[in-house]
Amino acid sequence: MHILVGMIMGSTSDWETMSHGAAILDELGIPYEVEVVSAHRTPDKLFTYAEQAESRGIEVIIAGAGGAAHLPGMTAAKTSLPVLGVPVQSKALNGLDSLLSIVQMPAGIPVGTLAIGKAGAINGALLAASILANKYPEIRQRLKAYRTKQTEQVLSHPDPREAL
Amino acid sequence: MHILVGMIMGSTSDWETMSHGAAILDELGIPYEVEVVSAHRTPDKLFTYAEQAESRGIEVIIAGAGGAAHLPGMTAAKTSLPVLGVPVQSKALNGLDSLLSIVQMPAGIPVGTLAIGKAGAINGALLAASILANKYPEIRQRLKAYRTKQTEQVLSHPDPREAL
Amino acid sequence: MHILVGMIMGSTSDWETMSHGAAILDELGIPYEVEVVSAHRTPDKLFTYAEQAESRGIEVIIAGAGGAAHLPGMTAAKTSLPVLGVPVQSKALNGLDSLLSIVQMPAGIPVGTLAIGKAGAINGALLAASILANKYPEIRQRLKAYRTKQTEQVLSHPDPREAL
Amino acid sequence: MHILVGMIMGSTSDWETMSHGAAILDELGIPYEVEVVSAHRTPDKLFTYAEQAESRGIEVIIAGAGGAAHLPGMTAAKTSLPVLGVPVQSKALNGLDSLLSIVQMPAGIPVGTLAIGKAGAINGALLAASILANKYPEIRQRLKAYRTKQTEQVLSHPDPREAL
Amino acid sequence: MHILVGMIMGSTSDWETMSHGAAILDELGIPYEVEVVSAHRTPDKLFTYAEQAESRGIEVIIAGAGGAAHLPGMTAAKTSLPVLGVPVQSKALNGLDSLLSIVQMPAGIPVGTLAIGKAGAINGALLAASILANKYPEIRQRLKAYRTKQTEQVLSHPDPREAL
Amino acid sequence: MHILVGMIMGSTSDWETMSHGAAILDELGIPYEVEVVSAHRTPDKLFTYAEQAESRGIEVIIAGAGGAAHLPGMTAAKTSLPVLGVPVQSKALNGLDSLLSIVQMPAGIPVGTLAIGKAGAINGALLAASILANKYPEIRQRLKAYRTKQTEQVLSHPDPREAL
Amino acid sequence: MHILVGMIMGSTSDWETMSHGAAILDELGIPYEVEVVSAHRTPDKLFTYAEQAESRGIEVIIAGAGGAAHLPGMTAAKTSLPVLGVPVQSKALNGLDSLLSIVQMPAGIPVGTLAIGKAGAINGALLAASILANKYPEIRQRLKAYRTKQTEQVLSHPDPREAL
Amino acid sequence: MHILVGMIMGSTSDWETMSHGAAILDELGIPYEVEVVSAHRTPDKLFTYAEQAESRGIEVIIAGAGGAAHLPGMTAAKTSLPVLGVPVQSKALNGLDSLLSIVQMPAGIPVGTLAIGKAGAINGALLAASILANKYPEIRQRLKAYRTKQTEQVLSHPDPREAL
Repeated sequence: MHILVGMIMGSTSDWETMSHGAAILDELGIPYEVEVVSAHRTPDKLFTYAEQAESRGIEVIIAGAGGAAHLPGMTAAKTSLPVLGVPVQSKALNGLDSLLSIVQMPAGIPVGTLAIGKAGAINGALLAASILANKYPEIRQRLKAYRTKQTEQVLSHPDPREAL
Repeated sequence: MHILVGMIMGSTSDWETMSHGAAILDELGIPYEVEVVSAHRTPDKLFTYAEQAESRGIEVIIAGAGGAAHLPGMTAAKTSLPVLGVPVQSKALNGLDSLLSIVQMPAGIPVGTLAIGKAGAINGALLAASILANKYPEIRQRLKAYRTKQTEQVLSHPDPREAL
Repeated sequence: MHILVGMIMGSTSDWETMSHGAAILDELGIPYEVEVVSAHRTPDKLFTYAEQAESRGIEVIIAGAGGAAHLPGMTAAKTSLPVLGVPVQSKALNGLDSLLSIVQMPAGIPVGTLAIGKAGAINGALLAASILANKYPEIRQRLKAYRTKQTEQVLSHPDPREAL
Repeated sequence: MHILVGMIMGSTSDWETMSHGAAILDELGIPYEVEVVSAHRTPDKLFTYAEQAESRGIEVIIAGAGGAAHLPGMTAAKTSLPVLGVPVQSKALNGLDSLLSIVQMPAGIPVGTLAIGKAGAINGALLAASILANKYPEIRQRLKAYRTKQTEQVLSHPDPREAL
Repeated sequence: MHILVGMIMGSTSDWETMSHGAAILDELGIPYEVEVVSAHRTPDKLFTYAEQAESRGIEVIIAGAGGAAHLPGMTAAKTSLPVLGVPVQSKALNGLDSLLSIVQMPAGIPVGTLAIGKAGAINGALLAASILANKYPEIRQRLKAYRTKQTEQVLSHPDPREAL
Repeated sequence: MHILVGMIMGSTSDWETMSHGAAILDELGIPYEVEVVSAHRTPDKLFTYAEQAESRGIEVIIAGAGGAAHLPGMTAAKTSLPVLGVPVQSKALNGLDSLLSIVQMPAGIPVGTLAIGKAGAINGALLAASILANKYPEIRQRLKAYRTKQTEQVLSHPDPREAL
Repeated sequence: MHILVGMIMGSTSDWETMSHGAAILDELGIPYEVEVVSAHRTPDKLFTYAEQAESRGIEVIIAGAGGAAHLPGMTAAKTSLPVLGVPVQSKALNGLDSLLSIVQMPAGIPVGTLAIGKAGAINGALLAASILANKYPEIRQRLKAYRTKQTEQVLSHPDPREAL
Repeated sequence: MHILVGMIMGSTSDWETMSHGAAILDELGIPYEVEVVSAHRTPDKLFTYAEQAESRGIEVIIAGAGGAAHLPGMTAAKTSLPVLGVPVQSKALNGLDSLLSIVQMPAGIPVGTLAIGKAGAINGALLAASILANKYPEIRQRLKAYRTKQTEQVLSHPDPREAL
């Protein structure tokens, strides 16, 4: 398979968060690329990236950013591919600013927004997988296996006192 | 085409919001169904709906709910289809409760969350279209036409004073 | 006495919080069980647990969860037993998301919500005790003794400077 | 049956909210009394009310208040009966102040808190019913009938477009 | 001078905050007493304290509390002395709950509220001093000297780089 | 009696709120003056007012302002009289900005802050009365009569259903 | 004088807010242009506008937007002219989302942010005037006259009761 | 060049934040002065500073403050120079109080507000540079070089995994 998912982030410091999503894509065998694309410091690169993604074969874009997080929304403004946004936890406002900057998009340009931080990065990858799964049966199969394993892990440790 | 999108909502009163998304699906010619499924008052129906959606041919679920909005997340817990969540504006907290209840999902079960209210309903439909577009070229085509028309409408009215 | 209280939580990591409530139930001699039940990763187990709780003799359910905390509300959706919700403090939003996801239930399905974190876990146990006390005089007696002792402890240390 | 539920509120203006809970208690045939008890303007009456409630046969207290809502917590400080708190929607902060003032009780004195406003008033009554149901089988029966009817009403109107 | 200020707090743990106010009262030579009075765990003591404060010669009460902080407001409900409230920083919500629980008092019963945490404790003492200063010229004199010294300290270090 | 209370506000539009406090001062027979003093548009007048208030015989200043409400804090910076702050409800943020701008004063310069809006204006007047009452026995007497009447009014209408 | 200020906004509906700023520019005799530029629906126009503004002689850009308001920040990313941002009041979150999306820019790309809504639009114009005043003495002169008149208007109506 | 930028802050402790802005001014070769000016503890110095800044040749003022941050707004009230405000991160509320106290200025007196904390301090300096750049071509040149270098640094490290 060629690269299906483009994972971009506004700063190298966002990799600490986004790497948890990359690990999921690895586990599910979904080819992806990773790139720093700053909406504010490299706006032209952002536009080029978003414009060319579809023709390069990318089918889902996952964009992580913090604070006044414009990367996911501006990417969505330049492509009709599905764009998923991961609000990175910011220092002062704990990611509430990141979340609102990503999720409150005006009618017309959607960003599918996930939770703040690590859980959001993981879920961005899983949502990308479920999107791809409609078209690629092997991804559906692997996603279902992942979900089943996840459920079994919880079921096999019903007593929280044993985990200590 | 058979029904591709399942649009569910927690209460008939959510239709005022969600109908704006249905209008977009109509405009894009995407077959969908609409149903009231209350996570709290009809939990068994929710489970049945989510379990059977994939085998019934549904490829994307859009779920709208307000307050302690559990419908999108619980639907996602019971299917590996992509689930998109629309936070309906609540009376006391203006939808901040709806938003956080939908978007802050734990790692493992993603919900792609849109903006609070009407814009979110519209964008839920557009994000569903972009997800389907990867597989259905005619939907990609219609989505691109929609986006182009939207851009042209803004470009053709550059002076806000004329709109009054 | 048979088991009267079912204490469930969404993840083993919630035990750090919920264990403070378990200690209170121990102190009051109220039989209880503890179990990890994830609304999102083990939804079927949640439904089975909630459906069978009453027939198994459980009289109060205490459910702790964090983030988009759906466990208390979905439990309440599947039983008419009193359900008490403990918002576990989340990483990014400090439990405000947990609180709103639990307390803002729609009309028809109540969850009696306690404070965020450790205090909420303790008070969940104490509220369960007060609920049971209406039916079990020995629990009323023990609860009153607990409350009296608590008051005396504060009264006996009126000078905060001595505590240092 | 004698009076089982004491419904108190901080001001006559809270009746607009709390009356929705009273209607539920009427519907379930649960005897209750209604009284204005202001924590701040009639503190002695509050203490007397809370101290005597148990000996008068009251088994659950529902307390509604807005703003710096001290009524539920101070009632709980003076009785070991279960106390349920309903945050009344306040003018400036939409009930967020009411909610935090009621729910964030310190360890030792619990208040089972419901949603802000009308939904909370209804659910306070339903939670009181579920508490009483453990002891009074006829209340359990009526509560279950109420819940079943509620579910059926939602199931019987699955199409939100018909409700318009 | 007899004791003019009653400084009370809900828990010995609040002393870490309130001690900063006590240090100011010491510095200004204002006689005060310090006592733990828990609104929730020792409500009767709170009522007795508030009822007797005026006849004991207390002229200002400073009350510090955290979370669902009912101590200042309930004290004000039982005395017509000026009551000043200090919101102690809470664990989960950083004192926002404490602040709203203290400041949002209903019309009729005022609490003069200070900032969250240490600054609020210091300012509670300074506001008490300014209240007493209207009646006690020597306190006015000392307060003015304190304010002058404070201004001079800032003026004498205009360059922040020298402070490092 | 000469004028004891200076009531200032940032804009004539604040009078709608502050007039409720003026009515209380009238009812308690406390001489006061009312003046528009804008911290931002008339800063020199603010400084002159605050500097001269004490020598003019003013004993308490009540300052109402909304938004970035700097009037109470800057007044307190220029006098050692007790300054009480009333957060006027702002349009966009409902007075949360007004509240935080007034209450979060740094250590050294206190403002006794009341509730947002009308209740705060009333309570500013009542707190001013309680401050003056320590020195003026007739004000203590009138304040106590006001409080007693207030309590009796609540006690005389215990049934909220009769108020409709 | 040629056009010095570019006033842009994300939607024609923002004109209701931004027109208040245009009126100030008119009053101060500052030449400006007004244009709808949507970051999300017309991203290419935004880039062209921002890239060419300086060479066209624009010296300050005022950008108004609501919700996930990316217009001011993305404009700033494409020019080194001073960019001022006006958060337009949004429907659900009252402009808190607009404010955080505009003000929380990462280090490197500044946006000078004004208040939410009408006051922010007026102040955006006044801040643009003060920026231009450093270079254009006649604008400094007019700005000072405006400020003096503003002060005199407040001073001439000191009694808020007369305004009713 | 004479001193063009006045950087003031409410406390020496704010230097930890503001020094990041000073470093930018150094890098861009913009002459500036640094001074502690407390709105609350040295109000007269603040007025003198703001009144004389223009005649002393200052063209932009950057003011940093935390909590009830009145320094930027009161400076703006006393000068028609452009005033930029930097909200310093506060202890309890993480700078949300600082932000709202600075940005929510009433119509008539603008403060160009930057992000909370370090990023805001850096951006205050960059916005000052862009303001000065309209008049001083060498500052425009240096600012553009800074921006180009910043962009190149991001472009030259596109892979976040290499940064670890």
